[in-house]
Amino acid sequence: MEKGTNKAIVLVSRPSGMAAASNFKLVEAPWPEPKEGEVLIKTLYLSVDPYMRGRMSDRKSYVAPFVVGEAIAGGVIGEVLESQSGAFRAGDIVTGHLKWQLYSVAKGEQVRKVDAGLAPITTALGALGMTGLTAYFGLLEIGRPMPGETVVVSGAAGAVGTVVCQIANIKGCRVVGIAGTDEKCRYLMSELGVNAAINYKTAGDMRQAVAEACPTGVDIYFDNVGGGISDTVMALINREARIVICGQISLYNLEKADTGPRVQPLLLVKRALMKGFIVSDYAPRFAEGINQLRQWLTHGKLK
Amino acid sequence: MEKGTNKAIVLVSRPSGMAAASNFKLVEAPWPEPKEGEVLIKTLYLSVDPYMRGRMSDRKSYVAPFVVGEAIAGGVIGEVLESQSGAFRAGDIVTGHLKWQLYSVAKGEQVRKVDAGLAPITTALGALGMTGLTAYFGLLEIGRPMPGETVVVSGAAGAVGTVVCQIANIKGCRVVGIAGTDEKCRYLMSELGVNAAINYKTAGDMRQAVAEACPTGVDIYFDNVGGGISDTVMALINREARIVICGQISLYNLEKADTGPRVQPLLLVKRALMKGFIVSDYAPRFAEGINQLRQWLTHGKLK
Repeated sequence: MEKGTNKAIVLVSRPSGMAAASNFKLVEAPWPEPKEGEVLIKTLYLSVDPYMRGRMSDRKSYVAPFVVGEAIAGGVIGEVLESQSGAFRAGDIVTGHLKWQLYSVAKGEQVRKVDAGLAPITTALGALGMTGLTAYFGLLEIGRPMPGETVVVSGAAGAVGTVVCQIANIKGCRVVGIAGTDEKCRYLMSELGVNAAINYKTAGDMRQAVAEACPTGVDIYFDNVGGGISDTVMALINREARIVICGQISLYNLEKADTGPRVQPLLLVKRALMKGFIVSDYAPRFAEGINQLRQWLTHGKLK
Repeated sequence: MEKGTNKAIVLVSRPSGMAAASNFKLVEAPWPEPKEGEVLIKTLYLSVDPYMRGRMSDRKSYVAPFVVGEAIAGGVIGEVLESQSGAFRAGDIVTGHLKWQLYSVAKGEQVRKVDAGLAPITTALGALGMTGLTAYFGLLEIGRPMPGETVVVSGAAGAVGTVVCQIANIKGCRVVGIAGTDEKCRYLMSELGVNAAINYKTAGDMRQAVAEACPTGVDIYFDNVGGGISDTVMALINREARIVICGQISLYNLEKADTGPRVQPLLLVKRALMKGFIVSDYAPRFAEGINQLRQWLTHGKLK
């Protein structure tokens, strides 16, 4: 194989507030040589995920911060160019958590094979990857949806949200999606079959909009967003409601902690549960999740 | 039996902010006559509980508001003066949710007998009553304490808090109580055996005080109080922490919803659980709770 030039996207400074292109630089990187048990991978797809904003800050969180001067990393789909591992051969499509560079080397156990015959390979970074698993475990393990219950999803048109909406549908729930454009709302309604979609940017009185979309109140709130949208939804929760804290994207770019109405009195009066989670907590059960998601996908229940 | 005058404490107006004596009036009430299956009860003790403030407002909550012009009600211990029920006889000590009046009539199934030989009868409104059961189910079912974990209790010297501290002790936890006077703190330390007690009114830097009292962080926060104290404790929770929302007394007299730092980002990063509960949710298991509490009481593990 001809050895091309390797390039990497490096963090050059930590963003304050919104991340900007100037915080990053595309630089030439050393050509990686696979050793025994390793594979050389050509990057095909990168996953851009909200949690990565957290890693750009020097704050203690559930994953270590990116290091200034080094390549950032995330979910990647790539093609094996050269294998020194018995588990892979050239041409295999694989996915794993890798650096953002054109060519990477990884240990065999760091990546897993993607079956290109089963579904588009990009699903390995979506419905059949971390975002699908996040939706699956968050909704089913914390939300525990029952038929007939109302599930509200914020960030509904996002990678996690779209899968949450569809699983809630499969479970026989009334599904209400919140998104930020009319196009996303149309997509939620026509393609994903949600019962109501709310464009929070144009809805005007959000409280009224959510109340109308949820005539029997909110049993499960799958929250990807946080902030004011969540305040509105929280005001409409039912007794024994479950609030799944998956993401708080509205807050990630804030320089100091945001304040809002306290949720504790609501949780008390409604005997409600609110729980944060990180998909990796469920790592021992990923195979179960992927199998179920794949089954729904092949049966056309999941897009 | 000579029929005395009956008197009742009636709500004459709904308080705004702190409740005042002027919101209530002691009035003469009709003499109650027990019918078939009923008992006539002379009130001995009344329980004054924080949740009653909520019932004085005309707000939808988990119990119906008190009615203006009618007697308020709550936990009562009384003596049966006359019984038209086969389950009781004159002289029995009973407890139940009754009106605040000198003499009441109740159906037999509305009250339960208190064994005066077992423990002081007032425990039926305390450790062996609703407050004990609240501590028991809240801490054990939501908090799920494990030996060696750190449990922080706000309102620690209160009716619920004192039992929570003791059960956490029994379960082998490090127990940190927060209270509002040095006397209460001394009581918590010397009588209830908590590991550290913090007077939030004199501690100065509460963040530092809680951090010092919890060198390995906070695994369980049993919250009776809410507000700023909770903000401080929340900032120190560990991964997989459980926050039991039992009361929010610091907020009950506020006229509008309080704001504070949002807890969702903390719950997310720490994968923590926050749950509100009302003791009556566990009514089917009250006998189990009372039996266990009584056992601890007779073995001197609970005061």
